[in-house]
Amino acid sequence: MKIESVDFFYLKMPVIRDIGDGSQDALVVRVRSGDLTGWGECEASPLVSIANAVCPPSHSACRNIVEQVLGVEINTPEDIAVLDQSVRARGMDIAQTAHTFSGVEIALWDLLGKKREEPVFQLLGYDTAYPKTPYASLLFAETPDKTYQAARTVQSQGFRAVKFGWGGYGRGAVENDRDQVHAAREGIGLDGTLLVDAGTVWGEDVEAARQRLAALEEVRVTWLEEPFIGNAVHAYRELKGYCKTIKLAAGEGSQDVFSARHLIDAGGVEFIQIDAGRVGGIAPAKIIADYALAKNVTFVNHTFTTHLALVASITPFAGVQSAEICEYPFQSTELAKSLVVDPVAPTNGQIVLPEGPGLGVELDLGTISEFLVDVEIKFDGKVLYRTPLV
Amino acid sequence: MKIESVDFFYLKMPVIRDIGDGSQDALVVRVRSGDLTGWGECEASPLVSIANAVCPPSHSACRNIVEQVLGVEINTPEDIAVLDQSVRARGMDIAQTAHTFSGVEIALWDLLGKKREEPVFQLLGYDTAYPKTPYASLLFAETPDKTYQAARTVQSQGFRAVKFGWGGYGRGAVENDRDQVHAAREGIGLDGTLLVDAGTVWGEDVEAARQRLAALEEVRVTWLEEPFIGNAVHAYRELKGYCKTIKLAAGEGSQDVFSARHLIDAGGVEFIQIDAGRVGGIAPAKIIADYALAKNVTFVNHTFTTHLALVASITPFAGVQSAEICEYPFQSTELAKSLVVDPVAPTNGQIVLPEGPGLGVELDLGTISEFLVDVEIKFDGKVLYRTPLV
Repeated sequence: MKIESVDFFYLKMPVIRDIGDGSQDALVVRVRSGDLTGWGECEASPLVSIANAVCPPSHSACRNIVEQVLGVEINTPEDIAVLDQSVRARGMDIAQTAHTFSGVEIALWDLLGKKREEPVFQLLGYDTAYPKTPYASLLFAETPDKTYQAARTVQSQGFRAVKFGWGGYGRGAVENDRDQVHAAREGIGLDGTLLVDAGTVWGEDVEAARQRLAALEEVRVTWLEEPFIGNAVHAYRELKGYCKTIKLAAGEGSQDVFSARHLIDAGGVEFIQIDAGRVGGIAPAKIIADYALAKNVTFVNHTFTTHLALVASITPFAGVQSAEICEYPFQSTELAKSLVVDPVAPTNGQIVLPEGPGLGVELDLGTISEFLVDVEIKFDGKVLYRTPLV
Repeated sequence: MKIESVDFFYLKMPVIRDIGDGSQDALVVRVRSGDLTGWGECEASPLVSIANAVCPPSHSACRNIVEQVLGVEINTPEDIAVLDQSVRARGMDIAQTAHTFSGVEIALWDLLGKKREEPVFQLLGYDTAYPKTPYASLLFAETPDKTYQAARTVQSQGFRAVKFGWGGYGRGAVENDRDQVHAAREGIGLDGTLLVDAGTVWGEDVEAARQRLAALEEVRVTWLEEPFIGNAVHAYRELKGYCKTIKLAAGEGSQDVFSARHLIDAGGVEFIQIDAGRVGGIAPAKIIADYALAKNVTFVNHTFTTHLALVASITPFAGVQSAEICEYPFQSTELAKSLVVDPVAPTNGQIVLPEGPGLGVELDLGTISEFLVDVEIKFDGKVLYRTPLV
C-alpha cells in the first residue's frame, strides 16, 4: 500500500506547568493509505519535530521526514526498516530526526497491522503478548510524608510496583533523600517493588550518587534510574562498582540502537529503558529488546505520555516473558488519559496489550480536536505547515 | 554584561542542490549587550533550530533556548559553562538542543572576547594560536580522472593536504573506489597528505569497509573518516583491528563531550573531528581537545560551511601545537565565502587564526541581507518567530 498522507497534530493542555510531567502535550501522527489509518506519537517538543517534518533541505544528508515517507510502498516489516535507514541517512545532520520519525514509524506499524489484520506484536514475531506488571510512575512529593501518602494511594489501587523520581531528589541533603526513599518504602509496603529515578540530577558526579546508595539499598530499591546524563557511560560504569544489591537503569534518551548498546556494554546498566517515541519507533526498540535479552539485561519501556505511546512502547518487548515490569503513567493529564477510547487498565496488578489489529487502540478524535493547537510555519512566503483537519 | 537580545538569521543559496555540500545554507546567531555584538553559527537545518530556539515548553526538561539566554549575565568563561549546563538540563528532551545552542554559545564567546578585548583562544587559556595546515575538503568527482584534476587544482593552489569524500565512494565496486583513491594520490602528489571520508556509507558493515583498506593503504591515506554511522563504535573498534597504517577518524556528529569520548575510548579512533557548531559550541570542543591530547589522539575541526564557523571550530584547538591539520572548506558557495569580510586564506600552505578581539572576524551585513530568508512561526495565534532585521 502506498502512503498517501502524513499529518502531525500538536496537542497540549491549556497550561503547561514547569514540572517533570511529560504528559502535558503530545505530538500525534496520522498516516493514511486508502481507507486505512495508522496512528503514532513522538516523544517531546512538538514544534521542533513539526519543523523537522517539513523543513527545507540543507544538503543531501539534511532533509525532512515527510518528503521521504509520502508515496512510499509499505507492505512488510522490512519496508519499514528500509525506510528507517533512508530517513536516518537523509536526515543524519538534523539531531531531531529520530524523535520525529518515531511517531511516523509507530503509525506505519499500526497501519500495516490493520492492513494485515494482525496485532503489531505478532508482526514483530512474537506469538504472545505476556502480561506485564505495571509500575506507577510518580514524581517525588514535596515532603516525605506526602511521598508516603502517594505510595499508599498507588498501593491501594492495586499496583505492586511504584517509581518515584525527579522533584527535589538528589538536589538537597543526603539525609532528605534518605527520608524520601524510606517514606516511599513504607507507603508501598514491604512486598512492593520500589524504583527510584534521579532524573540525571548528578550530571557525571559519581560521588554525589555514591552517597545515596546506602539509603537506597536499605529500603531495597530495585533500580536507580539515570543518576547521570544518559551519555555519561563512564560514570555509570564507575558507580556500578559501588552497588551491592541495587542495579542501574537508563536509556530513555536513546535515539538509536547504538546508544542503548553503549549503556549496556560500556555503562553496565542492567535495565535498559527505551521510549519507542524517541528511539526511532517500534523496530529499533525491538532490536534493543533482542540485544538486551542476549546480554541478560532487562528491557523496560519508557512512557510518560499517552496510552497510545504506552502500547507502542510495550509492543517491542511484549513477547519477552522474563521482562515482567513496565512503566505506566499514573499521574497523567486529562489529555494523556483521554487520547485513546479504551485506556489500558491494570487488572489484578497486571496489564495486557490489546489484541486488535495494529496497535489495537482507537483514538478519540474528540480529544484531538479539544486539545489541538493552531500552528503555522511560513518560509519564503509559502506555508510549509498548517495544523491539519482532524 | 547582560544578554539583551538573541537573534537567528536563516541564510540560504537560491537553489539547494541534493549533494553533500554543507555550505548551501547557514543559521547565523547574533547576541547583543549594550554596544557590543557577538556572532555565531549553528551547523545544520536552520528551520529546526529556529523552532528549538523559540518552542513552547513541554515540561521542565523540554524548554526552549532563547528564554534561558535572554537576561543572563555573562562576564567570564565560567558563566558560559554554567549557562551550557542549564540549557542542556532544561532542554534535555529536545534532541536538537545542542545543535541550536552551539551558535549561541559561539556568539557569547565572541561577545565576551570583544568585551575583554582579547581573542577567544586566549580566553580559553592558550597563549598562542599555532598555524595549522589546512586540508581542502572536496567531494569525490564523478570519475577518477575528474578527481585527479580536482586534486591537481588543489595542489596548484598551494594546499599540501586534501580530503575527498562522499560522491559515489563506497557505493559501487571496490575496484572503482581503488581507482578513485589512486587518482586522488596522483593528483595531490607523493608528498601531499591524502584523506578519505566515506560519509558513513557502510552503516555498520565492517566487511564492506575492510574490503577498501588495501587500496587506501597502498596510496598512503592518513585517515579513513566515518566508514560507519558515528554512533556505531563497535564497528569502528572491529575495523581498527584490520588497519595496518591507516587510522580512523570520526566525531563530527558529536553533540556532547561524552559521544566524542566513546569514539576515542571504545571506538579507537585516532583523529577526533569536532564541529563547534554542533557539539554545543567552543567550550565543549575545548574539553574534547584536552581529552584527546591526554589520550594521544589528534583533534581536528569539522567545518563545511562559512569562515565564521571555520574560526569558531579551530579556536578550541588553536593552542595545541601537535594538532597540525585543520579542515578547510574549499568548494564553498558564494554565501559561505562572503559571510565574513576577511576570509581566512592560506599563506605558504598554512592558516593562522585572526588575532582581533573575540573571534576576530567581521561579518558582512550585506551578505546576510542578500541571502536572508523570511520565516514566520505562529503558535495559537501568536508570532513565536519572525525573521529579524539585520
